[in-house]
Amino acid sequence: MKVVLAYSGGLDTSIILKWLQDTYNAEVVTFTADIGQGEEVEEAREKAIKLGVKPENIFIEDLREDFVRDYVFPMFRANAIYEGEYLLGTSIARPLIAKRQIEIAKQVGAEAVAHGATGKGNDQVRFELGYYALKPDIKVIAPWREWDLNSREKLLAYAEKHGIPINRHGKKSPYSMDANLLHISYEGGILEDPWAEPEEDMWRWTVSPEKAPDKPEYIEIDFEKGDAVAINGARMTPAQILETLNEYGKKHGIGRLDIVENRFVGMKSRGCYETPGGTILLKAHRAIESITLDKGEAHLKDEIMPKYAELIYNGFWFSPEREALQKLIDQTQENCEGTVRLKLYKGNVTVVGRKSPKSLFSPEFATFEEDSVYNQKDAEGFIKLNALRFIIEGYVRGKK
Amino acid sequence: MKVVLAYSGGLDTSIILKWLQDTYNAEVVTFTADIGQGEEVEEAREKAIKLGVKPENIFIEDLREDFVRDYVFPMFRANAIYEGEYLLGTSIARPLIAKRQIEIAKQVGAEAVAHGATGKGNDQVRFELGYYALKPDIKVIAPWREWDLNSREKLLAYAEKHGIPINRHGKKSPYSMDANLLHISYEGGILEDPWAEPEEDMWRWTVSPEKAPDKPEYIEIDFEKGDAVAINGARMTPAQILETLNEYGKKHGIGRLDIVENRFVGMKSRGCYETPGGTILLKAHRAIESITLDKGEAHLKDEIMPKYAELIYNGFWFSPEREALQKLIDQTQENCEGTVRLKLYKGNVTVVGRKSPKSLFSPEFATFEEDSVYNQKDAEGFIKLNALRFIIEGYVRGKK
Amino acid sequence: MKVVLAYSGGLDTSIILKWLQDTYNAEVVTFTADIGQGEEVEEAREKAIKLGVKPENIFIEDLREDFVRDYVFPMFRANAIYEGEYLLGTSIARPLIAKRQIEIAKQVGAEAVAHGATGKGNDQVRFELGYYALKPDIKVIAPWREWDLNSREKLLAYAEKHGIPINRHGKKSPYSMDANLLHISYEGGILEDPWAEPEEDMWRWTVSPEKAPDKPEYIEIDFEKGDAVAINGARMTPAQILETLNEYGKKHGIGRLDIVENRFVGMKSRGCYETPGGTILLKAHRAIESITLDKGEAHLKDEIMPKYAELIYNGFWFSPEREALQKLIDQTQENCEGTVRLKLYKGNVTVVGRKSPKSLFSPEFATFEEDSVYNQKDAEGFIKLNALRFIIEGYVRGKK
Amino acid sequence: MKVVLAYSGGLDTSIILKWLQDTYNAEVVTFTADIGQGEEVEEAREKAIKLGVKPENIFIEDLREDFVRDYVFPMFRANAIYEGEYLLGTSIARPLIAKRQIEIAKQVGAEAVAHGATGKGNDQVRFELGYYALKPDIKVIAPWREWDLNSREKLLAYAEKHGIPINRHGKKSPYSMDANLLHISYEGGILEDPWAEPEEDMWRWTVSPEKAPDKPEYIEIDFEKGDAVAINGARMTPAQILETLNEYGKKHGIGRLDIVENRFVGMKSRGCYETPGGTILLKAHRAIESITLDKGEAHLKDEIMPKYAELIYNGFWFSPEREALQKLIDQTQENCEGTVRLKLYKGNVTVVGRKSPKSLFSPEFATFEEDSVYNQKDAEGFIKLNALRFIIEGYVRGKK
Repeated sequence: MKVVLAYSGGLDTSIILKWLQDTYNAEVVTFTADIGQGEEVEEAREKAIKLGVKPENIFIEDLREDFVRDYVFPMFRANAIYEGEYLLGTSIARPLIAKRQIEIAKQVGAEAVAHGATGKGNDQVRFELGYYALKPDIKVIAPWREWDLNSREKLLAYAEKHGIPINRHGKKSPYSMDANLLHISYEGGILEDPWAEPEEDMWRWTVSPEKAPDKPEYIEIDFEKGDAVAINGARMTPAQILETLNEYGKKHGIGRLDIVENRFVGMKSRGCYETPGGTILLKAHRAIESITLDKGEAHLKDEIMPKYAELIYNGFWFSPEREALQKLIDQTQENCEGTVRLKLYKGNVTVVGRKSPKSLFSPEFATFEEDSVYNQKDAEGFIKLNALRFIIEGYVRGKK
Repeated sequence: MKVVLAYSGGLDTSIILKWLQDTYNAEVVTFTADIGQGEEVEEAREKAIKLGVKPENIFIEDLREDFVRDYVFPMFRANAIYEGEYLLGTSIARPLIAKRQIEIAKQVGAEAVAHGATGKGNDQVRFELGYYALKPDIKVIAPWREWDLNSREKLLAYAEKHGIPINRHGKKSPYSMDANLLHISYEGGILEDPWAEPEEDMWRWTVSPEKAPDKPEYIEIDFEKGDAVAINGARMTPAQILETLNEYGKKHGIGRLDIVENRFVGMKSRGCYETPGGTILLKAHRAIESITLDKGEAHLKDEIMPKYAELIYNGFWFSPEREALQKLIDQTQENCEGTVRLKLYKGNVTVVGRKSPKSLFSPEFATFEEDSVYNQKDAEGFIKLNALRFIIEGYVRGKK
Repeated sequence: MKVVLAYSGGLDTSIILKWLQDTYNAEVVTFTADIGQGEEVEEAREKAIKLGVKPENIFIEDLREDFVRDYVFPMFRANAIYEGEYLLGTSIARPLIAKRQIEIAKQVGAEAVAHGATGKGNDQVRFELGYYALKPDIKVIAPWREWDLNSREKLLAYAEKHGIPINRHGKKSPYSMDANLLHISYEGGILEDPWAEPEEDMWRWTVSPEKAPDKPEYIEIDFEKGDAVAINGARMTPAQILETLNEYGKKHGIGRLDIVENRFVGMKSRGCYETPGGTILLKAHRAIESITLDKGEAHLKDEIMPKYAELIYNGFWFSPEREALQKLIDQTQENCEGTVRLKLYKGNVTVVGRKSPKSLFSPEFATFEEDSVYNQKDAEGFIKLNALRFIIEGYVRGKK
Repeated sequence: MKVVLAYSGGLDTSIILKWLQDTYNAEVVTFTADIGQGEEVEEAREKAIKLGVKPENIFIEDLREDFVRDYVFPMFRANAIYEGEYLLGTSIARPLIAKRQIEIAKQVGAEAVAHGATGKGNDQVRFELGYYALKPDIKVIAPWREWDLNSREKLLAYAEKHGIPINRHGKKSPYSMDANLLHISYEGGILEDPWAEPEEDMWRWTVSPEKAPDKPEYIEIDFEKGDAVAINGARMTPAQILETLNEYGKKHGIGRLDIVENRFVGMKSRGCYETPGGTILLKAHRAIESITLDKGEAHLKDEIMPKYAELIYNGFWFSPEREALQKLIDQTQENCEGTVRLKLYKGNVTVVGRKSPKSLFSPEFATFEEDSVYNQKDAEGFIKLNALRFIIEGYVRGKK
């Protein structure tokens, strides 16, 4: 049996690789993607070869542009936030991985795919819903749900027994982490006590606001059809945009988040996140929308956003309903263009200016002085008719 | 004709007072409320008397507790935010003023009420929807829509002519402002250019993050049924809670906001807001909800929130649909109790801990190790059935 | 001043024509459209000429295909129903009239448009929102809100005085009516008592179920991308489809409705409607959707439908939010094709069969016997994880 | 082990009873409820005794009033319909059964419950979500998912082998059926072909419209707080109301439905339903709401209804979100009282009159003649401000 494994090159997925070979007698095809996690993906090649993977079965790809252009940006057009706080950094990367795994499976004629997500988390769902949506007859292997290596000790023993190198240099992080160009996340360790504040050295990407520069920095972001296309006037690719915003965010202590969230699989979980560039981008996108979107479409977007965010969180990226919602969202972004000016300072992202050739903001209509379009007396009729149902109710039900 | 006027004691409503006497030959009844705007309301008495108002027609009331208990707190139970940013500080104060005006009108036998809101803004709608909802046969006088004093010059000339004192000391603010215990707002002046950053001295309540203390401060807020009831263990009334949080926020540069919003009456408008205590409270409330609310009710709240916020923004506080939504929201707060620990630092409010006797967070269910309740193999069935519609579609539509 | 008047050729709009000439000294351009109301539109030409309208200022057009193709069908893709009952027959015709009036105004260089809708109804709003959305600087003249001809007597006196022919043959209907290819509506008269049943002879299109044939009739409707394209195998244009369905409906007593609805302008109103073809079409469309739409998109459509219907009812057809919702809806109709078989009998429309080359219905997955895709044991995991939040709550809150 | 089994007395649950005794060595406690399914529940006693159940372990209860009062009526206050058609007749009965099973389990000290729902349907979910919500540590036994009796032949063989009486008189229905006071349902057999029309003799409750009386019948239903309380002036209990409406509906051929629906577990399924009384009740409830509910609350109800219906369909009756939605719904029913007059004729339910002491319908506000409350000129301002966003967009984006 051929199996395409989402392979990071780390200890856990190396154990899985070996376990697939042993348990399923599988010919393992490894797929390692650079989605901006900040690790050298080429190292995975050597490791895979050492574990007996044939060179032609090793797929290593740089998907950073695909990731930002086709997943992150469409999601940011929706201002998606899960449970009022979380920017969906992990959720949005899974569909891309699933999609490439299935494409490779079709290419190499593999009948199964495997991933390293655990049996209590959201990621197993996100991977597998993607697999099934794209290839309904695929066989899915989820080792964490199948094996009995359900403790750190058993895992290490298995690695040792099978000659899988364990990095004993440096301190093993007590946290379970995930990273991509949009964010890095932390779970486990002392975070399992929701009353405990994480230690400063948990955070890997951003400086603390306390250590960020004492001087604010101003930047400008240009948008076209709802997507950021330039920073300080310099036009960039989607991935370059996010990388550049990440640098700004990391420097200024922006985008840390510490929450308890509701997993799709039913339990609550504490997570800490760093989303430096994304936090800036969301603020900026809302600001450019504020002058270019009509009220009706803006409010409609706000109303459907929680459902859209939940679909992404739960792993339904490839569902027909996410695609239908995307059509709605993209339609609203047709005129969403212009420039936003932001002030970055010690954890704060403040919008200080926005302008657009498509701006619907027109101060002459908003001032209290007269203008040509708006007759202040119109307000009386507007109010009277909005109040009419209350007035009638008051009369007929004797509320005077 | 007797008219109950919402009277601040300032220049504009003093002009209105005089104008009502002259134009309608009205016996004016003044109503001045302390809702935490930070001005000495008793000064309004002397001014009213000077303008010929009978002492028995002067109503001056401290409504701070009513305001926070019956309006601000119910709204914060909903995590209400308008257009992703605005905490509804002005919107939520208008219904209370309208309600007391109508009660006084009934008490003194007045047939009309009047307010000082202009003809292009939201506040006229909020006042008047409240009036009509509470007394359908009330006559509403909105001088700004009726008179021809539609410029600053004409107003001052009118004041001068009628001997209304104009405060010529100090610089007149270029901004139109509104304040109450929840926030202070700024409109007009250079804000009419959405690309222009407001000058630092516009902000009246908070220090800038730059000038805030260099050391973070930690506070704890206790909640019961979704409302804050104590700070650092000290039990307080609702207004005391908000006043205390305001002090923390002002000190640490928290709660400044600069947005372009969509008014109910149809145009876009730039507004700057300071909501120091409210910004802290919202973060804390979401945090206590995160461990005490069931996922289903939390997501339901998020879905209906934009509608709830829009109702308040548009002035529909006394509508049956706002009341029905409130029943839903209040029901979800039954177990919303516990303590949130926050770090305040230079504009940042960070949740660092939350605990509750009613907590639904249980680390044993979230870790990747085995537990008694959750069988990791259950996840397979869960995913398979969630994916079933994709699988069937794939099969019957030949997507393999 | 040139004014484009929506002119039916009837008494009321003839009076308006004359009144516009007299009051505004207007050069009136008449626009008369055949949208299936069942009257000879060419008669309007002679009447207009008699009233002094220049021949080149008379526009008479057959818009039946535009109406069904671009308005009725897109709306039926959404299964739009207002307040659980009303199929929006009047609402959906107004935007088309408004659009053509504005196009003609641009063509002939008119600066104003006028309509014959009264000042308390929804239609004035629907017309005028359309006008302003398509030409913001248009001048709108709404005679019913301006003149003092506010009773039937005054109108008739005005007509007599100005030589406008009044049809004195036949009984004047006590009802205010509106008709187009989708429906005919009745208001006023004894309907103003919501307890009174309308007389049988009010209904003009359908026979009563009592008088409908004693034998059921079966028909088949074919759909493509959500639109009906053929009846009993005969391919037809959109207007032909609706006309044909109307004939079936009229014959079998289908589509009568008697409701009290909430007008946009704030009061309740009793209306009776006959929508024979539309009633059949809605049933059939839901049926073809039932086998071709994915559950997720079907439920999404149901959730946003009330908002979509309200937008159309309120006159917001040309709003950005209606257009965004339409993108969502149209996306869901891509695979909505196949055939529905219906039984028509004395007021009843019963779906008795549906089939589609894109059907997602697959009996092998639904039976209780084993199949290849669905492992019944998966259900246990599915239920367990859906129940997990209840189980955890039960444990931690001691509910045993 | 003690197990409380939902026992109908029929063949399938008798086999389960035996199987539980054999497989689990269980002491089976049977629970048989009369919820209006139309079978003599007392017969279950004798059968249970024959199968070795101790007399004290046999629970037979008449729950018809509980069912209608606490489940059917609250649901009808919401006008709940699943996927535009289905009145949720099966869905709403499951929570009550689950609740009583758990209560009996607590009373008799049983550690497990069992039900006879199959592994591909919705009912297993509805039962088990109820069990877990009410007693998180309950053990659930779902024989259909566990045993290998997965065909009719194996079941009969098992019954024969264990001496369970098989009713060989009469023709075995080819359909899988479920009934309670609200409805009877049919699945399977030729219904598995969605193009096939069911034979007339499948329908067990209603006469066909063709065979219904040739004369219409009029009835009146009185409502209080949204619930029906009297028919033709005769006050009745909730179950009596539904039974009486069922009689009317059965006689007049009302409430047949033939649909393809989306099951919670992911596949589509064809179902036929008879809901005679419920179909009448829904029509009547909407009619009494139409004159007593404010527009805002009525529209809010319509918007949240699909979610509420989906929760019930999916088995989440005991969820916090259903309870929160119920609070919202019940709040809107405070003034929902009055009388509805209906005409019943050959499958048609037509509302012909509605009246209420709390009616918000007031013809004087709806006519086109003048009145005291509504100034027709107000409509101009109302329209102008509703159009303002379009007008501004037109100007600034050059759409003229």
